This record gives sequence, structure tokens and C-alpha cells, in this order.
Amino acid sequence: MDLTHTEPLGVAVVGAGYWGPNLVRNFAASGRWDLRWLCDLDRDRAAAVVGRTSPTRVTDDLDLILGDPAVVAVAVATPAATHTAVALRCLEADRHVLVEKPLASSLADGRKLVEVAADRGLILMCDHTYCYTPVVSHIAGLVTDGALGDIQYIDSVRVNLGLVQGDIDVVWDLAPHDLSILDFVLPPDRRPVAVAAHGSDPVGAGHACVAYLVLELGGGACAHLHLNWLSPTKIRTTLLGGSRQMLVWDDLNPAQRLSIYDRGVDLRVADDEGRRQTLVSYRSGAMVAPSLPEREALAGVVTELADAITERRPARTDGAAGLRVLELLECADRSMQAGGRSVTVEEVGN
Amino acid sequence: MDLTHTEPLGVAVVGAGYWGPNLVRNFAASGRWDLRWLCDLDRDRAAAVVGRTSPTRVTDDLDLILGDPAVVAVAVATPAATHTAVALRCLEADRHVLVEKPLASSLADGRKLVEVAADRGLILMCDHTYCYTPVVSHIAGLVTDGALGDIQYIDSVRVNLGLVQGDIDVVWDLAPHDLSILDFVLPPDRRPVAVAAHGSDPVGAGHACVAYLVLELGGGACAHLHLNWLSPTKIRTTLLGGSRQMLVWDDLNPAQRLSIYDRGVDLRVADDEGRRQTLVSYRSGAMVAPSLPEREALAGVVTELADAITERRPARTDGAAGLRVLELLECADRSMQAGGRSVTVEEVGN
Amino acid sequence: MDLTHTEPLGVAVVGAGYWGPNLVRNFAASGRWDLRWLCDLDRDRAAAVVGRTSPTRVTDDLDLILGDPAVVAVAVATPAATHTAVALRCLEADRHVLVEKPLASSLADGRKLVEVAADRGLILMCDHTYCYTPVVSHIAGLVTDGALGDIQYIDSVRVNLGLVQGDIDVVWDLAPHDLSILDFVLPPDRRPVAVAAHGSDPVGAGHACVAYLVLELGGGACAHLHLNWLSPTKIRTTLLGGSRQMLVWDDLNPAQRLSIYDRGVDLRVADDEGRRQTLVSYRSGAMVAPSLPEREALAGVVTELADAITERRPARTDGAAGLRVLELLECADRSMQAGGRSVTVEEVGN
Amino acid sequence: MDLTHTEPLGVAVVGAGYWGPNLVRNFAASGRWDLRWLCDLDRDRAAAVVGRTSPTRVTDDLDLILGDPAVVAVAVATPAATHTAVALRCLEADRHVLVEKPLASSLADGRKLVEVAADRGLILMCDHTYCYTPVVSHIAGLVTDGALGDIQYIDSVRVNLGLVQGDIDVVWDLAPHDLSILDFVLPPDRRPVAVAAHGSDPVGAGHACVAYLVLELGGGACAHLHLNWLSPTKIRTTLLGGSRQMLVWDDLNPAQRLSIYDRGVDLRVADDEGRRQTLVSYRSGAMVAPSLPEREALAGVVTELADAITERRPARTDGAAGLRVLELLECADRSMQAGGRSVTVEEVGN
Repeated sequence: MDLTHTEPLGVAVVGAGYWGPNLVRNFAASGRWDLRWLCDLDRDRAAAVVGRTSPTRVTDDLDLILGDPAVVAVAVATPAATHTAVALRCLEADRHVLVEKPLASSLADGRKLVEVAADRGLILMCDHTYCYTPVVSHIAGLVTDGALGDIQYIDSVRVNLGLVQGDIDVVWDLAPHDLSILDFVLPPDRRPVAVAAHGSDPVGAGHACVAYLVLELGGGACAHLHLNWLSPTKIRTTLLGGSRQMLVWDDLNPAQRLSIYDRGVDLRVADDEGRRQTLVSYRSGAMVAPSLPEREALAGVVTELADAITERRPARTDGAAGLRVLELLECADRSMQAGGRSVTVEEVGN
Repeated sequence: MDLTHTEPLGVAVVGAGYWGPNLVRNFAASGRWDLRWLCDLDRDRAAAVVGRTSPTRVTDDLDLILGDPAVVAVAVATPAATHTAVALRCLEADRHVLVEKPLASSLADGRKLVEVAADRGLILMCDHTYCYTPVVSHIAGLVTDGALGDIQYIDSVRVNLGLVQGDIDVVWDLAPHDLSILDFVLPPDRRPVAVAAHGSDPVGAGHACVAYLVLELGGGACAHLHLNWLSPTKIRTTLLGGSRQMLVWDDLNPAQRLSIYDRGVDLRVADDEGRRQTLVSYRSGAMVAPSLPEREALAGVVTELADAITERRPARTDGAAGLRVLELLECADRSMQAGGRSVTVEEVGN
Repeated sequence: MDLTHTEPLGVAVVGAGYWGPNLVRNFAASGRWDLRWLCDLDRDRAAAVVGRTSPTRVTDDLDLILGDPAVVAVAVATPAATHTAVALRCLEADRHVLVEKPLASSLADGRKLVEVAADRGLILMCDHTYCYTPVVSHIAGLVTDGALGDIQYIDSVRVNLGLVQGDIDVVWDLAPHDLSILDFVLPPDRRPVAVAAHGSDPVGAGHACVAYLVLELGGGACAHLHLNWLSPTKIRTTLLGGSRQMLVWDDLNPAQRLSIYDRGVDLRVADDEGRRQTLVSYRSGAMVAPSLPEREALAGVVTELADAITERRPARTDGAAGLRVLELLECADRSMQAGGRSVTVEEVGN
Repeated sequence: MDLTHTEPLGVAVVGAGYWGPNLVRNFAASGRWDLRWLCDLDRDRAAAVVGRTSPTRVTDDLDLILGDPAVVAVAVATPAATHTAVALRCLEADRHVLVEKPLASSLADGRKLVEVAADRGLILMCDHTYCYTPVVSHIAGLVTDGALGDIQYIDSVRVNLGLVQGDIDVVWDLAPHDLSILDFVLPPDRRPVAVAAHGSDPVGAGHACVAYLVLELGGGACAHLHLNWLSPTKIRTTLLGGSRQMLVWDDLNPAQRLSIYDRGVDLRVADDEGRRQTLVSYRSGAMVAPSLPEREALAGVVTELADAITERRPARTDGAAGLRVLELLECADRSMQAGGRSVTVEEVGN
């Protein structure tokens, strides 16, 4: 395989459901890729997605795709339960793989994928889409350059009405977004080390439709996620408190997605004539909303996949990142089973 | 004591700090009350609160107040740690008592107050202010008349910057609002029965400045509170999901404080040729924002106190309601000490 | 030409600038149309718009398109100044025509187009896109069924930063949206009959970048437009006051695009013992936000064009509607030249 | 009269209607003032406003007040039509006067007041309350120090439901707010020089309930006011476009009242090989929301009145400022009578 920049790489998308069409659109629009196949058990649906006149072929047979030598990578956007099986077949056929989040439906399966990819020197990339948005890049920069100071807490609300999934609960459906963002934004020694989770299923779906995760971060701070399929309105808001600055990210407000506040609470212990006293002071300064470019994150994902392949280096959101997300999801599962007890990553790791 | 409607009742306010001035203003403006005293250790502060020219007398001596036979009731707005001592002295001097939330700084203390009041046939009322707002009355009506259907979950966010309290943590400071609202709005068999709490103190205040409470409600649904002194912006938003309707209460949006959505998720198990299948359908109907009157809740509080005294009946938010809030606060304390384990009301009750 | 429903109609788009790509996307996605050509002087741009692999041919030669007998309709999305020339050539070649707003760059030109289309029995349709949105349909329904009562005033704000056009001023750029909406929503006898316009050019663009239009409606009420290329934020808000209900349409708030208020002012003249007195009462009732479907308006435009052609009837937003918009634009031009004097449609009509 | 800082000045308020109680509250709370009288034809209303126990005396007789030698100033908050008569009596009794906006109900009346005050060396101050708010002070600072660059346009929306006034139209009711703000914020040579006004009375109130004013500013820019008593929602939003920065002032958003955008449009005329060409570029930078203190503007008004009296200097919003507002209101009146023709300040000035 000649993987120079100049020639588009052949790619196939598997899965024409909710997310697949977005992958199709971005691969088709990219100069780096030649989208050769869209595979779905429902061939009519796949045909509708690519359009009457597209050169992309439609099939319900993965083998046909893997038999096409021009296909160097496969993007897997099937239901979560089938990620492992599909991805594994592709890896074993020596194709690079991009997998929709979550990487697999269990930590064990995820590890299997990472191992096989490593053994064969293939790129295994997770489609952690948010990590390719301008707003998350900006936040990562603020964390890295110390503008926020020490992180005191993170609170994320990700709620809306539906879609109630049949095969996975609300944690496995929505938390991967937040967990992958935390993984990307935080320094390695500040990543989550334990999870306490509470879920509830008030509509009888068979698994949690409303859930709360308390994540203990390395260093002692705490992150919290509210995940909910039963909210009348859509909310996508993250608060991040830092010792220097604090921010609010409201992803549904394109005119002011990110607000950075020069606010905070400072405590100082004073010794007032032998009497220890805590003095609290508040900073309540200005707010700045940076100007962020509007660009589609998924375009960055498909470019990063091409770059990782051609430069023979791990992708920015590689299999290891996907595994760390899976570890936390497993912690959440175990915690819910144990009545909300905090479960450490170490526990599920062994 | 002659307590007819026609003559104003004598009252004293103890505490001229954050909340006291509001009580002073409302007692002074009420035709039902004659505000005779404002008591504070800082007499200058008290004098400034009543104003140069007010007939209300200022003192730092509670005995002076209790020696005034025209005083039939005392409103206690001192720091939480002193509620019990002050209230007890007033009750033992045969005065009716209105206590700022929380009723006491421990469940044991609260019980003591309730007992003494009961023994002496005195009114003991908690200033659960929110229960006297038009919006909470409206929500209570929606729950009672079944308009919301079965309650599926409740989620409340009560966050802002400061004030970091020295004597109580963020749970004891902010949760009484939400817990008293739940107590008022929910039918007795749906009230909280257990609490799992997670707190964090990233600024070194000596107690939690950020906390999350998961409340198990009678009947199995779940309520969740986010309480935070370290948020750059103020948020006061409650989501309530019901099987018929859902609502969003945004207390900071006076133009649309309450939004009631004809939305929801319905699950139906179908038998499709022997194969059990769960069918999910979504209602995504209109939203109605009722017109709510704008009136000060505290005016309702002081009127209710006068009514309870003259009608010799328990106040709407009586000592028992205050105790139920204290029980849940104690559950939260114990849960935080036990690493987030869910603690039942029954446990703390004995 | 056989124009049965079963076979897609051949169409060409002329102009690959700002709006053309949207037309291309919607014609390509429609089962009613076969998009055969995209024409632009910049062929590379046109090629990029249709995509590497599309069957739609690209050209810079309109004659080539008009020489293709399978093309029954042409959509014109060129700069406003060229609408007339391009549309006229298409009509004279016996093609149905859809023209981007405004229909032409002068009333005289617009009339010429309408005449030629009428003489040849061709469909001439204006792309008044907003008239095909769910929200405008809903408002039209409220007006028609009397739910709003008598219309008291309409106020629309359509402002944002840029794009400062070189060939047309802000009135010709933005007002066609509002004027076409008014034309669609109001009964014929309530349509605008006169315009007073004020414009200003604080950046030296050579024509108005900020403008205000006061429209006198038939029956005496008043509509007002604020049009502005120099606003730091984008606002798209319309207030409509009716004697029964009032509404706010905020097009940038997809979660609550339309709010209908049971509010109003009622005046009654009373005779109080011989003394005439005006009694004012206020209704301040609930607000309802109807659930509106999310669908792309332009899909409705291309379907309506196909329907009008096959059913041999005028399109919903036909040439006559386009002319009425042009009449008002000419009134605005003349009013600005006359220092803001109100100019009637009758004046420009003759 | 001894007017040292140390002793409070005696003051009386005339009018206990909508605004009077606010004046009463602020004079009573101020250490600079001794509020001796509240005068209203409805003595019961006045008594209710001061409260049962206040030392402020209540009367319906202005002579009684003017007979009290301790009263050095009178604040007039009666209906607009009576401002002149009441203020004149006070000035002629050698009292300093604060008048509710508008200063008088005609320009001629206003001039009379200014003359009499000047002749007698008395302070005549207009209660242009907004000029004492932190946000308007901040904006004035931005204009003065050049941070906004040249002002390109100002657009203000001041709408809500009611109160429909009987004696004055919506322009005289609401425009004084905006006109006094413009007067305060703009440099003298940039103040309004002409007004074109359009009003409408769709409910039959006898005068305009909806009005639009186009103000030509000195230097050529334009300001626009939308004034409306018939809006279902309250809006208080001002846009100000400057050549360097632009701002949005949303007075109903206390959490972000002022937003300052580093945005704008720059035009440059280039000479491209003999062909003149206008190049447009857009700045779309960050937004800053300054931290503004929350303090009651009226407290600043009563302090300024005391300062002006003791320092024997004109008040910040003096009679001359009140006259300039009256001139513009008269321009608006004449413009509405003349069908919207622009009327210059010079015309009404002579």
C-alpha cells in the first residue's frame, strides 16, 4: 500500500444508522479519502444515505469490503454491541479501524481490539468527536497553559428527550462524550481514578434512563455528570471551576459557547492575636467569551485518521483513550450494582 | 393573650444579619404584626436595619424582649448553630417561634424544639420561604391534581459564587431549600426515604463547598440536588419529569419561571409473533408557561404565622416539616462520612 | 414534455455563490427532480459545489443548459443585478423559472418577467424561502383562523454582522425576507400600502447598511422593520400584537421558536355619571409554545415548484408575490431619497 | 440655611403614585436627607407609603410643606401634566427642586422652570435615573475614552405590556429614558439634532401606544428608538455600533448586562490596476462582559441632589439636560403631526 498524501485513501463505512450518514458525508467531502463502500444490513437505507448518483457502492456484506484491496481503513458505526465483532474482523483483515464511541461494549472486548491492533501495527482510533471541536481544543489549551489554575470541580449536564436505547443504558450512551472530553482535557495525573454511579429507570426500559456519576479525579478534585434521556429540554452545559478562572461551556449557544470568568473564592488562614481565623475573599471580575471558529468536528476526525495512518503514529484519540473510557464505564456499572459505592479504576483493571 | 384578628400581634426579630432585614421589612409592612424589637449582638447593625426613625426598638439582650408581655412571637434569624438555644429560650418563655431554616443544627436539637413547643401548645414554624412562592404553589397543585402523572425524577441545581459559610457546609446551607420544597410538593408516601451524598472541599474551607445528593423517593423514583458555592454563575433550575407532563422551573427567569411540557417517553411491550419487543414512543407536544403572580413569599410566611397563632393550628411549614428536613440533612452527613453509601431516614431516626 | 409525477423533472441551477449550493443540495435530494446542470462563471467553484463524483454537469455557458431538452426548469441564484437577464433568457427559451429573492433589481424588470411568463404560460416562482418554514405556516394559520384577533402592529428585527453587499443596500438584501412573510401571512386587504424608510451608511459602503422601514398596512395598523449589517450579534425576532393574542417569533431559538401569549390591552369607554372615562384593562395570561416540526424550508420550495409545474397552477409564492415585494422595495428607495416621507404603493405603481 | 454635610437636609416628596414610593425609600435611607413630608391628594395612599410608624408627615397640602422652613428641597413625582405648576410653586418659595422625568409637559413650560431657578440661584434637577446606573456610567466612559471609536448607530428597544397612560403618549412616557441617556453619554457635538417620528394607536387610547423615533445625531450617525406599550414581553435592549467596538446592553439580564464585542466592518477602497474596488473586512473577535456593581440608581440621584445643593453647582442632570430632552420630545410631536417628516431641534427652538 502506498500511503502518500497525494492520493486519497480508500475507506468503507459500516453502519448507516444515526451516526453513519455523518461519517459518510465527511469522508465523501474530504480530499484525503476515497469513500468506496457503505455497508448496512438494510441496503435500501444505505442506498438512500449515499444518494442515487454516488460512486460509493452499497452492500450488506462486510466480506465484499474486506475483499477490496483499495480499502485501507474501515469506520465502524454499528450498534455498540457489535463494535467488537466488526472491528475485529477488519483488524484481522489488516485494515485500520475507526470505531464509534464506545470502543466496545465491555472492557475485555476493548482490550482485545487494542491488542490485535498493536500486534498488527494498525491504527485503532476512537471517534471521540468532541475532542475535535474548537471549544474543547480551547478548553484543553486553558488547562494546559495554567490559565484556569488548579481544577476545583467539573460539572456536566447532558440531558434531552430520548433516544431511549434498547441495547445500552444512558451511561454507556451519553457518558462516553464527557469521559472522552475529560480524558483529552486533563493532564494524565488528573484523570478520573474512581466512579460512584446512581441510575434510575422510571419508564421501565430495562436499564438506567437517568444517571449521575461522581468521578474522583487524580489529585482529589471531583467531576460530576448528569445523564438523562427523559428531560423535556436539551441541556449541554459544563461548569469548570479553577483556582484562577472558571468557565461555563454551553454547547447549545453558538453565539456564546464558552464564557471564561475571572471569578473565584480565595481562603486565607490568618493568625489574629493567637486566634486562627479563616478569611474568605471573592473575586468577581469580568467575563470573556473568546471567538471560536465554526467548523465540523467530524472533518477533523477523518483528517486525523488519515494523518495517523500516513504518519504511522497513534491517533489523537487512540485505542488507549478508548480503553480508559471503557474502564470508567465499567466502574460505573459496578458502582450501580453495588448501590452507589465508589469503584476505583484499579479494581476493574485487574 | 387576646389574639383576635383586629389587633396586630407583637413580634420580635432576633438576628440582623443576611436574612433578618427581610423579616424586619415584612413584619413591619404587615397589618397583622406590630414589630416591637430587633435584637442583635451588633446593636449598630440592628439600628441601621430598622432605620433612624422606626418605632421598633433595638437591643442586644434577648431577656428584654422576653420581658415584654406584648411580644407573642419571636422570629429567629441568627446563625444556624444558635437556632436551638435562642428558640428554646423563647419557647420556654411561652412565645411562639418562627425559625430560619434549618430548624436546628442537629436532628436531636430539632426534636427537642418540637417537643417543647408541643408540650406548651405553642406554634413552632419553619421559615421554608420557597413553599410560599406562587411557583411552588403551582407545582404543588400540578402534582396533587395528577397533571404531571407519576413523578419519574426530580433534578435541582442550586449553584452560585459564595457565600462560603464558616459554621455549616454547602449542604446545610442550600439543601434545606430543595428539601423543604420536596417535602411540601410531594405526597407523604413519595417523600425522600434515603440519601446518598458526595461532597468536596476544593478550596480548603473545612467542609464541603460542592455537593451532590441523590434522594430515593418513596415509590422508587429519584431526586438529585447539585449544591455549589463555587460556580461562576448563579443557576436555580429544577427539572421534574412526570409520566404525563414534564416541567422546567427556572427561578432566575421571571418572564418564564415555569414551563410545562407535554412531552414524555412511553414504553410498551408488544408481542410480535411470539417475540417480545419493547416499543418506545415519544410525545413532543406544546409547552405552556402559566401566568404566575409576582408577590413576596416572605409576606406569606408572616401572614401564615399570624394565622396559625390565631387559629390555633399548625403552620403550613411546621416543626414536623422542619424535622423531616433535618432527618435528610443528617442522612447526607452520614452518607458523606461513609463514602457515599445510601443512608435511610430510618437509620437516622433511631 | 411529459410532466407526470412518476418521472423526475430536469432542472438546472444557475449561480454557485452563497445560496446556490443550498438549491443544489435540495434539488439533488428531491425525488421530484433530476438536477442536470450547475452553471457558474467560476467553473471550479461550481465543480466543488456538486462534488467530484456527482452526475450533475458543470458549465459556465447558459446556452448549453437551454439547449438540453430535458431541462424543464431553471433556478436562478445569481447576484440580484443579473436576475432579470438570466431569468428572461430562460423564460424566452420556454423554461419555468425559480428566482432567488428579490425577483429583479427593479420593479420595471420584475414586471417584464411576469409578463413574459404569463404570455408563454410558464411558471415564474420566487424563492421566498421563509414562506415554506413550519413557523411561518403556523403564524399564517393563526392569522387566518382569527386566533390573534385584529393585528395591531408587527415589529421585526433582522440584524447581524455583514455581509455588506456591493451591489444592493441592506433594504434590498434583507427586507425581501420580511416583506415576503408579510405578503404571505396577511390577508390581501391588510397588506402594506405605504412605506417610510430611513437608511444610514456609517461605514461608507456607498448605500444604506442600517435601515428602518415603517409600513402602513391596509386597515391602518403598522409594521416596522429593523435591518442592519453592522450589529455585533445576530437577532431574528418578530413581535406581532393582536387584539386577542400576541406572539414572539425568535428564529434563533430552535427550542422555543414561537411563543403565543394570551396577553393584551383592552380599552373601554365608560360613562360615569355623565363623565366619559376610558377604562384600561390588561390581560396577562399564559404563554403557549407550540411544537413545530423541524424541516428544511427549501425542500418545500423545490417540491412546490414541481407541483406548480405538473398541476399547471401558480406557485404559492408566484411572480405576483415577487412584484408586490418589489413595489415595497421601490417605495423604500423613494422614501429614503425623499428624506423619510411615506411613499404609497400607488405612487410607484403608475 | 446652613447646608453643611454633617446635618441632613430637609426634603419633601410630592406624589405617592408609581415613582414617589421609590423616592421616599431612597430619601429615607440616605444619611444626607431628612424626609419630612410626603404630599398626595390621596392622603391614605401617602400614609400607606410612609408606613404606620414613620416620622415623615403626610399631607395633601403643598402650602404646609412650603411653610416648613426646614424643607430645603422638594422632589416632584406627580403626573407629568402637573410638574410645571408644582415645581414652579416650590421654586417661587425658594426651594430646590428635583423633578420626575419629563421636566415639564411642554418645552415652553420647561423653559419657564429653568429661568425661574436660574433667577433665584436654585438647583433644578431632573430625575434622569438611568444616568446614575453603573451600566450607563460604564458606557459613557467607553464613549469618552474612545474605546468604541466613532459611533456608527444606536438602536434601543424599550417595550412591554402597559401601562397605557391617559395623559401622555408612549413617546413622552418612555422616550425620556433613552433621550436622557443619549444626552448623558454622547459628547455635546454628537447629540441629536433632528427627529423623525412614527406613532400608532391600535387600541384607541387617543394617542400613540407604539412609536418609532429616528434621531439624527450631530456628525451624521443615527439613533433609533422603539417604544411600545403593547408588547407581550418586556425588552430593554440597546445596540451601539462603534468603529472600534460594538456593545449590547440588555438591562433585563443582570448576570450579563453589558457585552462589548471586538467586532466590526472595515471598508477600504483599493486601486486594483486602475480599477477602484471596495474591500470589506470583518473583525469577529472576543466579547467582554465587564463586572458591574449592583447599586440602586436612585440612591445616586438623591446624593447628587444633596451635593449640588451644598456645593452650589449644577446637578449632573440639570434643568438644561431636561430642556434638551423636551426639545426632542417636541420634535417628535411635530414630526408625527407632519406625517413622519424629520423635524430639527432648531425648528422647535425658536
